Amino acid sequence: MPDIGRMLFDLFILFTAGRIGGAVFVLLRQPAVVGEILAGLLIGPHILGLVGDSPIHEVFAQLGVVFLLFIVGLETQPRSLLRVGRQSASVGIAGVIVPFLGGMLLMRGLGRPLLESLFVGTALTATSVGITARVMADLGVLHTRTAQVIIGAAIFDDILGMLVLAVVSGLAAGTLSAAQISLLAGESIAFCLLAFYLGRHAVRQFSPRLSLFAEASGRDAVFAVAMMLCFAFSALAESIGLAAIIGAFFAGIIFAEIPDAPRLRRSMQPIYELLVPIFFVLTGVRVDLHRLLTPDVLPLGLLITLVAILGKLIGCGAAALPLGRKEALTIGIGMAPRGEVGIVVALIGLSRGIMSNDIYAQIILMSVLTSLFAPPILRMLLVRQQPPIADDERESA
Amino acid sequence: MPDIGRMLFDLFILFTAGRIGGAVFVLLRQPAVVGEILAGLLIGPHILGLVGDSPIHEVFAQLGVVFLLFIVGLETQPRSLLRVGRQSASVGIAGVIVPFLGGMLLMRGLGRPLLESLFVGTALTATSVGITARVMADLGVLHTRTAQVIIGAAIFDDILGMLVLAVVSGLAAGTLSAAQISLLAGESIAFCLLAFYLGRHAVRQFSPRLSLFAEASGRDAVFAVAMMLCFAFSALAESIGLAAIIGAFFAGIIFAEIPDAPRLRRSMQPIYELLVPIFFVLTGVRVDLHRLLTPDVLPLGLLITLVAILGKLIGCGAAALPLGRKEALTIGIGMAPRGEVGIVVALIGLSRGIMSNDIYAQIILMSVLTSLFAPPILRMLLVRQQPPIADDERESA
Repeated sequence: MPDIGRMLFDLFILFTAGRIGGAVFVLLRQPAVVGEILAGLLIGPHILGLVGDSPIHEVFAQLGVVFLLFIVGLETQPRSLLRVGRQSASVGIAGVIVPFLGGMLLMRGLGRPLLESLFVGTALTATSVGITARVMADLGVLHTRTAQVIIGAAIFDDILGMLVLAVVSGLAAGTLSAAQISLLAGESIAFCLLAFYLGRHAVRQFSPRLSLFAEASGRDAVFAVAMMLCFAFSALAESIGLAAIIGAFFAGIIFAEIPDAPRLRRSMQPIYELLVPIFFVLTGVRVDLHRLLTPDVLPLGLLITLVAILGKLIGCGAAALPLGRKEALTIGIGMAPRGEVGIVVALIGLSRGIMSNDIYAQIILMSVLTSLFAPPILRMLLVRQQPPIADDERESA
Repeated sequence: MPDIGRMLFDLFILFTAGRIGGAVFVLLRQPAVVGEILAGLLIGPHILGLVGDSPIHEVFAQLGVVFLLFIVGLETQPRSLLRVGRQSASVGIAGVIVPFLGGMLLMRGLGRPLLESLFVGTALTATSVGITARVMADLGVLHTRTAQVIIGAAIFDDILGMLVLAVVSGLAAGTLSAAQISLLAGESIAFCLLAFYLGRHAVRQFSPRLSLFAEASGRDAVFAVAMMLCFAFSALAESIGLAAIIGAFFAGIIFAEIPDAPRLRRSMQPIYELLVPIFFVLTGVRVDLHRLLTPDVLPLGLLITLVAILGKLIGCGAAALPLGRKEALTIGIGMAPRGEVGIVVALIGLSRGIMSNDIYAQIILMSVLTSLFAPPILRMLLVRQQPPIADDERESA
C-alpha cells in the first residue's frame, strides 16, 4: 500500500511549486511551462530536496501528459489543416526534416550511437502547439496569416513528429530489420488513420444522441465518452508500441469538431490545471541541475539548442519565403519552441535506456531555452507586421 | 516503474464500468453510486476478473475520496447549519448517537472486540449528504422545511460523525489510555476548529485579492489555492492521525462562502466526474461477493442493515417528532442512506486491520442496501406532503 500521507504532501509541494513558478513566469510575460520546469529543478533532490523520486510520481506525470496531449488534440481542428493548406504543410514538413537531419547529423558527427542520434533528431522535430498557440492568443493575433500558417504548420509538425517518434520508438524496441520498421510504420499509420477516420465518424454519428442521453440522465455523457476513448486509445497505442500520448492526441482530435467541443474543452480545463503543471514540475525534478551545468553537458547542450533554433529557422523560414522575408523569419521563430513535446521524446529515450542522462539533460536544456527565447522575439515581430488573411486565401488555401 | 499501459487499461475499465453502472441506475431512478459499486463487484476479481488489485488503484481511490469530501465540504454552507437551527441539530445529534449505540451494542452483544464494535457503530452514524441532497434536488423539493431539516441534520451528522471517526481512529492507532484519547480528541477538535476558523478567515481576507491576481495572470488562482489547501489539509490531517478526508472536508467548507464558490464548484465538477466514480467502483472491486452471500456474512449483514435503518428512524424520527408524525418519518428515512461515508469508515477499519473482511463486507452491504432502499420511499413520502418553510422560521430557526 502506498503511503497516502506522503503522496498528499508530495502533491501539495508539486502543485504549489508549479503554480508559483508558472505564475511568476506569466507575470514576467514568459510561458508558464518554463516557470514550472524551473520550479521542479528548485524543489528536486539536487537543490532543496523537498520531493524525491517515487513510482507514484510516474503515475501523476503520465496522467498529466496523457491529458495534455488529449487537450492538444481537442484544440486541433482537422479543418484548419486544410484551410492553411499547402503553405502550412511545406513549413511543417521542412520544420520536421531539417531539424531532424541537423540533430541526427550533429550527434553522428560527434560519434554517438545511431539510436540516440535518431532520438535527438526526433526531439528536435517537435514544435509545442501549446506554447506557440498561447503566445499568439495572448497577443490577440490568432487571425493573422502569419499566425494561421504557424498554427497549421505546428499541427502538421506534431502529427509528423509523432509518426517519426513512433518509427524511432519501434526501432528502439527491436532490431533494425526493414520488415519490422515497415510493420511498425504500417501499424502506426494504420492506428492513426483508423483512430482518426473511424473515431471521427463514430463520434460524429453518436455525439447528438449522447447529448440527448446526457439530458435524460442529468450527467455529462460527452465528457464520459471522451474520457473512455482517451484511456482506451492511450492504452491501445501503448500496447502496440506507440506512445500513450499518441493515442491520447487522436482521442482528442476526433472530438475537436463536435458541437459539444467547447463544453468538453471547458470541462478539461480544471483537469489540465490540476495535472499538467505537475507533469512539467516532475520533468524539472528529474533533471540533475549540477550535471546540466558541468563542462560535460553545457557546451553540447548549447550546441544542440543552436541546431534546434537554426533547424526551424532555416527549414520553416525557407519554406515560408514566398510570403516575404520578414514573415518567413517570424514563422521560423514561431516554430522554434519545443516545450513539452521535446521533453516527452527525451523522457521516452531516457526511460528505455537509449538516451544517456547527459543527452537527456541537454534536450531539457534545449526545450527550456527554445521555449524561453522564442516568445519575446515572436512577440516583437508579430506586433509590427500583421497582414490579415484574405477571405479567398482562407477558402482556397 | 509502474506499467503505464496496464494503468491506462485499468483506468478505462474502471471509469467505463462506473459510468455505465451509474447511468443504468440513474435511468432506474436510483442513486448512481449504487450502480457504480455494483459495477465494481461485477468487474472485480471474484466475477468477471477484468481488473485485479494494484497499489496504483489505492492512489486513484484515495484521490477520488479526498476530492469527494472536498466537494461535500464545498457544498456545506456553514450558515445553513445556523439557519435550520435547533431542529437540525437535535435530529443530527440523535442520528449519530442512536445508530452508534445500536451498532456498537449489537456487535458487543455478539461478542465482537471493542474496537471493531466502535468502528461498526461509527460506520452506522454516517449520513450520505451527497445521496440525500441529490434525491431532494432531483425532486425539486430542496426548499421545503422537511428537506431543509434533513440537509441541515445531515451536515451536522457529517461533522459529528467525522469527530467520532477521528476519536475512534485515534483509539485504533494507540492504546486505550484516557490521556491519549483526550489528546487525540483535543488534537482533532483543535485541527477542525483551527482549519475552520483560521482557514475561513484567511480565505475571506485573501479571496478578493486572488480574483484580482487571477485576472492579471489569466489563470484561475482561486482554484489553485483551493487545490493547495485541499492537499495540505489532507496531508496534515493524515499526519496527526485524522483521516485525510477530514482535512479535505474542512478545506472545502472554508471555500463554501466566498464569492467565487460557484465557479470553484463548476471547476471541481469534471474532477469529481472523473475520479469519484472510480472510487466507488474500486469499493465494489474490493468486495468479495461470494463471501458477502455466504451464511457467515449475509444474516449479520442484514441485521446490521436493520439496526442502521431503525437507528436513524428512531433517533432522527424522535428528534423530529415536534414537526408531526409524517414529517418525522420522512426525516428518519431521509437520514438513512449511508452511501460513501459508511464505506469510508469501513475502508479505514479494514486497512488498519481492525475490521475483519466479513464485517467490512457487511458494512458495504449495509451502505448499499440503505442507499438503495431509502431514495424510493423518500420520494414517495416527499411527493405527498411539503409544507413550505415560513420566512420567519427560516430566519429565527
